[in-house]
Amino acid sequence: MNKGGVFVVAGPSGSGKDTLFKELFKRKPEIKFSISSITRPMRVGEVEGEKYNFITREKFLSMLENDELLEYNEYIGNYYGTPKAPVIAAIENGDDILIEVDVNGAKEICQKLPEAITVFIMPPSYKELKRRLSGRGTETQDLIDKRMKEALNEIARATEFDYIVVNDDIQTAVDDIIEVMSSSRLALKRQKNLIDGVLSNVES
Amino acid sequence: MNKGGVFVVAGPSGSGKDTLFKELFKRKPEIKFSISSITRPMRVGEVEGEKYNFITREKFLSMLENDELLEYNEYIGNYYGTPKAPVIAAIENGDDILIEVDVNGAKEICQKLPEAITVFIMPPSYKELKRRLSGRGTETQDLIDKRMKEALNEIARATEFDYIVVNDDIQTAVDDIIEVMSSSRLALKRQKNLIDGVLSNVES
Repeated sequence: MNKGGVFVVAGPSGSGKDTLFKELFKRKPEIKFSISSITRPMRVGEVEGEKYNFITREKFLSMLENDELLEYNEYIGNYYGTPKAPVIAAIENGDDILIEVDVNGAKEICQKLPEAITVFIMPPSYKELKRRLSGRGTETQDLIDKRMKEALNEIARATEFDYIVVNDDIQTAVDDIIEVMSSSRLALKRQKNLIDGVLSNVES
Repeated sequence: MNKGGVFVVAGPSGSGKDTLFKELFKRKPEIKFSISSITRPMRVGEVEGEKYNFITREKFLSMLENDELLEYNEYIGNYYGTPKAPVIAAIENGDDILIEVDVNGAKEICQKLPEAITVFIMPPSYKELKRRLSGRGTETQDLIDKRMKEALNEIARATEFDYIVVNDDIQTAVDDIIEVMSSSRLALKRQKNLIDGVLSNVES
């Protein structure tokens, strides 16, 4: 059986990532989603095991010590991480799995899983990014400027990714992600075993 | 209008490249093919402007001097090169263009056209490669060993390419190349202008 692919997806606020994912999983419910393990308290409306597994600080630190995380970070005293086991299980089972992370997390994951395919979700233009980040017009100029600066810092690091998907029209962007997921099986990152197999006369 | 893509394709003898290209251009006649400029005499059955432009040594050297070649090499006293102008014209016109080269040529082209997408055509296995290179059983063992060694040397450099297409079943391999050509518009190499455009608030 062919292995599944690991797709590490990042994008700044204003890229419309959340809507995109919602639409992607509606159209392709067979794609797995990597559930983050986090130590912050559950918020109203959140459901255990939907987007996050809410775990204790002790549990998190023991996972970290046992190398059970593909990436993690700490934010205002809480830990956020991507557990390794479900990702490995998915690909061994032939399933594609999507991991939502930030730019640093994407880099960490690729160090541990060099075959991971990275995708950056881009707003279509500076102007449209600004429009989206300005929200309903109730934000202060300072807050908008701060968001804009953060988003542009992330976009400057889009060059670290394998694929760039522009989220202008949502259906086109979903088509593009699906095309990346399908065609990336031909990308060098995912074909290295095959090359080794031919060179060493071992069937892969 | 969107620019076309440059697809630099290499593969060892035994990869079945020629049959693959024939089938690809039958299915996608709109794809342009880069015609090499060469200085060796025309052989029986060859047609000017089909696969090669037969030019004089003087003309070739003047093209070389004027930086009108994307790559070239010399083989037994004759020159072989890829002219730059038709490639640039194709992409500016929104057409995809395929360039057939060896592994060294692919590297040279990417230095001059960093957005070029490289594809390596692989035989499905060591055993099948050997079978294909043994031909009709009329070759000497020495010749087969020599061909095999050359092919494996090229395959060892497949890791320099963006995509690996296995040529086992010809129709599947053609499907795969078409998928690479379509989806690689989303690859980082071809999206760098877009990133620069958003960062600098310039519409691309």
